[in-house]
Amino acid sequence: MDLLPTEGSEEASRHFLQEIVNILLAYMCKLFKRSTKVLDFHHPHQLKEGLEGFTLELSDQPENLEQLLVDCRDTLKYGVKTGHPRFFNQLSSGLDIIGLAGEWLTSTANTNMFTYEISPVFILMEEVVLRKMMDMLGWSNEEGDGIFCPGGTVSNLYSVLLARYHFFPEVKSRGMSAIPRLAMFTSSHSHYSIQKSAAVLGIGTENVLLVKCDERGKMIPGELESSIASAKDRGLYPFYVSATAGTTVYGAFDPLNDIADICERHGLWMHVDAAWGGGLLMSKRHRVKLQGIDRSSSVTWNPHKMMGVPLQCATLLVRKKVSLNFECNQLCAEYLFQPDKHYDTSYDTGDKTIQCGRHVDVFKLWLMWKAKGMEGFESQINKCLENAEYLFDKLKNRTDFLLVFESKPEHSNVCFWYLPHSLRNLPPGCERDKKLHAVAPKIKAKMMEEGLTMIGYQPLGNKVNFFRCVFSNSATQREDVDFLLDEIVRLGHDL
Amino acid sequence: MDLLPTEGSEEASRHFLQEIVNILLAYMCKLFKRSTKVLDFHHPHQLKEGLEGFTLELSDQPENLEQLLVDCRDTLKYGVKTGHPRFFNQLSSGLDIIGLAGEWLTSTANTNMFTYEISPVFILMEEVVLRKMMDMLGWSNEEGDGIFCPGGTVSNLYSVLLARYHFFPEVKSRGMSAIPRLAMFTSSHSHYSIQKSAAVLGIGTENVLLVKCDERGKMIPGELESSIASAKDRGLYPFYVSATAGTTVYGAFDPLNDIADICERHGLWMHVDAAWGGGLLMSKRHRVKLQGIDRSSSVTWNPHKMMGVPLQCATLLVRKKVSLNFECNQLCAEYLFQPDKHYDTSYDTGDKTIQCGRHVDVFKLWLMWKAKGMEGFESQINKCLENAEYLFDKLKNRTDFLLVFESKPEHSNVCFWYLPHSLRNLPPGCERDKKLHAVAPKIKAKMMEEGLTMIGYQPLGNKVNFFRCVFSNSATQREDVDFLLDEIVRLGHDL
Repeated sequence: MDLLPTEGSEEASRHFLQEIVNILLAYMCKLFKRSTKVLDFHHPHQLKEGLEGFTLELSDQPENLEQLLVDCRDTLKYGVKTGHPRFFNQLSSGLDIIGLAGEWLTSTANTNMFTYEISPVFILMEEVVLRKMMDMLGWSNEEGDGIFCPGGTVSNLYSVLLARYHFFPEVKSRGMSAIPRLAMFTSSHSHYSIQKSAAVLGIGTENVLLVKCDERGKMIPGELESSIASAKDRGLYPFYVSATAGTTVYGAFDPLNDIADICERHGLWMHVDAAWGGGLLMSKRHRVKLQGIDRSSSVTWNPHKMMGVPLQCATLLVRKKVSLNFECNQLCAEYLFQPDKHYDTSYDTGDKTIQCGRHVDVFKLWLMWKAKGMEGFESQINKCLENAEYLFDKLKNRTDFLLVFESKPEHSNVCFWYLPHSLRNLPPGCERDKKLHAVAPKIKAKMMEEGLTMIGYQPLGNKVNFFRCVFSNSATQREDVDFLLDEIVRLGHDL
Repeated sequence: MDLLPTEGSEEASRHFLQEIVNILLAYMCKLFKRSTKVLDFHHPHQLKEGLEGFTLELSDQPENLEQLLVDCRDTLKYGVKTGHPRFFNQLSSGLDIIGLAGEWLTSTANTNMFTYEISPVFILMEEVVLRKMMDMLGWSNEEGDGIFCPGGTVSNLYSVLLARYHFFPEVKSRGMSAIPRLAMFTSSHSHYSIQKSAAVLGIGTENVLLVKCDERGKMIPGELESSIASAKDRGLYPFYVSATAGTTVYGAFDPLNDIADICERHGLWMHVDAAWGGGLLMSKRHRVKLQGIDRSSSVTWNPHKMMGVPLQCATLLVRKKVSLNFECNQLCAEYLFQPDKHYDTSYDTGDKTIQCGRHVDVFKLWLMWKAKGMEGFESQINKCLENAEYLFDKLKNRTDFLLVFESKPEHSNVCFWYLPHSLRNLPPGCERDKKLHAVAPKIKAKMMEEGLTMIGYQPLGNKVNFFRCVFSNSATQREDVDFLLDEIVRLGHDL
């Protein structure tokens, strides 16, 4: 059957989209029910072979609309319900209804962020939202510029790019061979994107010096200081420090003021990767953990994590207003950015980015902000952190679980081992560790097969595989936390 | 009013989303009507001051759902209707109903492409779709790997990154100071993202050598050959050529086979930027223009352009199967990519990319492919190129319009000047050029104020401002082409 833009197909198009919406509404209502499974796991080969008529293969012939509706239902059926109250697997989770409405509108508007000409409303919304976020950082009205990026890794890459350009603008035209060998610093618990940026930008991963952390996962300022000194001794040119506000695994906050002191003393660019921790700025109770962030040169902050905005929604914020962005990334493609346009072309953001076309990621956040206000985000975030405390308190009092570090969580990450019966009487040490390392993967495998909940695990440094529980879903209640622990015990006690 | 996940709010949530959908369906039906304006232009300061109660500012207090619906209506009202049959402004246009349904589902699924664990269906769909696209390139089953990227500029950046790693794997850890000074080659008509990549990667824009084109905008192979020789003479290390299949302004196709011969002779990485031209591979009639693309090392191809897929949908395809991708970008973050998972972890794509989280861009394309089959894409694309020929034929026979180059368009780009009465009797030359340069901006300004159609303009090389019309919207008919020319004449004749 023909759809729009074919003439006379209005009714058919409305009907088809309404059918899709009915499927999505049914999915959404089911999603939040605890009787619904989080996932219906199948191995890649099973899905590829086709399950109950659901085939991923594409033929040259068109399918009819009825078949497409079936395919849509199946796509959701075999997917993972990241919005489920018992999905604890990722820093991004939940499904915000207002944010979802925002995404539906965004895709219907189907436009591109490079110029004001074709995105007047979204370009201005971006400015408004970024300004709000910069206010939260504590930057004055005279400071601050920013951009929405396709994920926090790209935001972090921008920060290194901008810092390099700040110190050595000639690098843009002449390349790295025209400048000294650079050194970057970040903590051993930081996100791997800092190293990735060094690889991409031609700085080299070995010139990223990983600064030691304390037991809690926080960068030790004295170690940063000595790391800078030893880089200088080796003939490197230190220029950039990335502090982390909310590490991926432990949820730790680096001591930003101490790091800012060191950066000021040595004249370094201070970036804060607050992709995960930035959301805490919305909470009067928790924002103290980011004290000193106002002194940074740039900040990564992903509203798609702690603020519950649908994927993707990530930002880079830069303190120097003078559009460092523009100079650094500008190439003045005249076919897009004509200086002789009849409107204020400072709103054409395309030359600010390393992208050309750019997806509209702002609208859903703008709409959520309208709907919730600061207070809505605040209570949502406080609740996630309360869930973390609740889990922490439970674990503290149990002998079958072991905390990875003893102190109260700063963010919503809680890291722990489960000790099956067989391990409980072994003394700490190599032998127990070896066995313990295999516990989390085994439980996770069973957990995915059964599909009632999901939680991630990983090793870190000299610590063998442990579970990391994170809370970013406002659907999650205490009963879900209880359920998670019961489920781990059920699946793991006889390992 | 409370929405999900609050208990008892199912009906309210359904109702709210249904209201949003009603707004979107009304927008969509209006969009394709020729009586609808393409845009309702306002200057940035006007929109910022607030129009008829539409305020972009965010307050700390929540708004009610009724107000949000009004905001959504206003957001669409003051936006640009990029799907309108008379929107000729950008390489991406149109609004595909199936693709739109795909996007709505994608945002409802709200997941992330980094692991099979949380995106089993989408990860496998990506493999299926990319394989299909690689088949179209003429790569065998033993060849080919790929990834969806946030836009063609990032795809192009990947290609340079992969090429550099291919020749100098040590650059990843040791940086650019450990390797020779590199030289890259692309045509003077190529997309600026190639230079941007050089800036980002630390190669430097001055080491991107712009090879001369013929009158038609195609790279001259002999010029490439001599450019390579002169780079070597200057002590540079040539490693990468980006040929363009469908240039941004002229829609020209570089002679791929000739360029492949040169690349083979000199042992260079041959990339083809087919962001715009790749779609022609879907057409038996037009795919001949990309002959030789099978010999490339990598290809950028954006389905969000000529294939009419909603924004964003862009790919990078790499011929060498051995997961060059992986080695180049891998950093093995164990918290995401655990080797001890119970499924085949080669499906965890996160380590293939320079991103970490990655938006799901495949589903809408997969669904469109199911709905249309190859033949659906083919007829859509053929029609766009027929529209271009129709415009070209009309312009050829008019004295008030002047073609920028005389030959028949290869792609759907048609480039031309409009000569107002006052210029028609001036001889070609500096004086006329000076006046002509101001014509397109003036017409465009009036055109946007009136809002009935939109077309882009730009200067290029020594050519003063000219219009570039592009066709990628299957809603566009010959009557719209007629309308465009009439409108230009109406707005410009007395300039």
